[in-house]
Amino acid sequence: MRNLITDVPGIHVGNAHDPAAASGVTVALFEEPAVASVAVLGGAPGVRDTAALEPEMTVGAVDAIVFSGGSAFGLDAAGGVMSVLSMRGRGFAIGAARVPIVPQAILFDLNNGGLKPWAHGGGGEPPHRRLAAEAVAAAAPDFALGTAGAGYGATTANLKGGLGTASAVTRKGHLVGALVAVNAVGCTTVGDGPHFWAAPYERDGEFGGLGAPRHVPASALVPRFKGGPGANTTIALVATDAILDKRQAKRLALSAHDGLARALRPAHAPLDGDIVFAAATGRRPISDPIYDLAELCLLAADVLARACARGVYEATALPFPGALPAWKDRFGHRGG
Amino acid sequence: MRNLITDVPGIHVGNAHDPAAASGVTVALFEEPAVASVAVLGGAPGVRDTAALEPEMTVGAVDAIVFSGGSAFGLDAAGGVMSVLSMRGRGFAIGAARVPIVPQAILFDLNNGGLKPWAHGGGGEPPHRRLAAEAVAAAAPDFALGTAGAGYGATTANLKGGLGTASAVTRKGHLVGALVAVNAVGCTTVGDGPHFWAAPYERDGEFGGLGAPRHVPASALVPRFKGGPGANTTIALVATDAILDKRQAKRLALSAHDGLARALRPAHAPLDGDIVFAAATGRRPISDPIYDLAELCLLAADVLARACARGVYEATALPFPGALPAWKDRFGHRGG
Repeated sequence: MRNLITDVPGIHVGNAHDPAAASGVTVALFEEPAVASVAVLGGAPGVRDTAALEPEMTVGAVDAIVFSGGSAFGLDAAGGVMSVLSMRGRGFAIGAARVPIVPQAILFDLNNGGLKPWAHGGGGEPPHRRLAAEAVAAAAPDFALGTAGAGYGATTANLKGGLGTASAVTRKGHLVGALVAVNAVGCTTVGDGPHFWAAPYERDGEFGGLGAPRHVPASALVPRFKGGPGANTTIALVATDAILDKRQAKRLALSAHDGLARALRPAHAPLDGDIVFAAATGRRPISDPIYDLAELCLLAADVLARACARGVYEATALPFPGALPAWKDRFGHRGG
Repeated sequence: MRNLITDVPGIHVGNAHDPAAASGVTVALFEEPAVASVAVLGGAPGVRDTAALEPEMTVGAVDAIVFSGGSAFGLDAAGGVMSVLSMRGRGFAIGAARVPIVPQAILFDLNNGGLKPWAHGGGGEPPHRRLAAEAVAAAAPDFALGTAGAGYGATTANLKGGLGTASAVTRKGHLVGALVAVNAVGCTTVGDGPHFWAAPYERDGEFGGLGAPRHVPASALVPRFKGGPGANTTIALVATDAILDKRQAKRLALSAHDGLARALRPAHAPLDGDIVFAAATGRRPISDPIYDLAELCLLAADVLARACARGVYEATALPFPGALPAWKDRFGHRGG
């Protein structure tokens, strides 16, 4: 166990980013098509090929899940992944054709200091399709956290956002992992202090080991929002090696949103497109379809909360004037 | 401000219960029809007349919202409220008829020690329709908490559940309140200790003022579920005096679920029917449809988290052998 979503057998993750644009892409690649679903609970989502993931829809499994910066411009990214996977012979067979199933969600990182003429009337092609092809080529068991991939340009209301991950194992031995690009409308930390909202769920000092404040002052509960409606979205994937059907994957995605609720304040606002994909690589059956699933759901929320804090904890600041500080810049002397 | 949902102008709340059956009903009654919506995020819900609350449906406002025990048997309760309201001339006019709009959700309290022959093959009429008529007649600005109304028979995995409420005000002066019957599949408290998961959100010692544990031991994170699939559900209403449309009310309901996520572990499981209604009594306009709504959403999650803890904090144990202890029985010497 390396506390990565890739502890779940059958998943590799790859990142790519464009430093000048300050945007990037993360791809979760499944060795075999994985049963998947999705739950969109934020008010301003940006997605591609997610309708097929509803339980009543026909397509049952996905080849990859893509997270991208670039707001809706970034929705080209999945095409880059499809190109690579098509050449590898992957995809849903329809006659002689094969269509790789690559659902995607985006986050807004257009105003973070990077050069993005394609989003400011200057034309040119956004980099995300190219970055996505690079990311899928780089997919491996190990991958960078923090200011990396889709988290490269991500921010929160008070600190640099980033890419996070975590994993856990159920009492019956099923693996559960989370991958998240944290670009929240609010904060992962309590007030102006170093503590993470997700502190109760932390394991082994994975995001500094500071614990929780014993009492939260009222001042720390005053609403704080990042400027600009639509300038936010936290995108997540939870995955397990359990054998689940789409209906169960949908439940896993819905329950895992509680991890966003516990790690971010606020989450699920009119101002964000908070979304969770859930995927099952199907290596180990569950023996109790209710209680085993309930435990997977509980752990999915836990690992997602931890992954959110870790994404911010591991981030480094962008090298632009006025860029938000990273957690370690502000508080690093107090944590790991 | 009395820290009740009835701090929101235009709402009264009434309770009624049957001690022998150990079940009850809570009614939130709106002085004028309130714009309302609902979000069902649990996996095992029991509802009545909720489809009409989706934003694309025609009926725009509700006369009352009902919470009831009795599992699906309790879905008769709304009929009792409709009878009373019909005699008061309330309801959606269709020709000469008036149909009071009274959506409802139930919770499971059938195995809590009370006598419920109607749920065990013994026949007879469940008490909820009658209790609901009593509850709407009793509706007032003040109402009992804890073991009262729909919370009368409610439980959690380790402690007696109950009816909770809380309120708050936005920076622009809009009121936000929550009402909840806590019957969670999991716990509102951390491990075997007295601390509530909702502690970071507590105001003025409303549920004992103990704060949060600085570090949560791994043992406190081991999954704990109440026995019996379907034996759970936490039902909530969040309300505001803001003028909202149904679409905004839906967003408020969705966002408020984060309060359940923060106060309960787990929430939104395959084993519960966790549901949040949202209602707007429409006394004060919002000036910014994005940020004002975002603040209402944030506070709705806060007040709901607080209301959940308070419902358990205020509960008293049922007088049956083997009944779950109340929080104050176990920890009362440490809190309020």
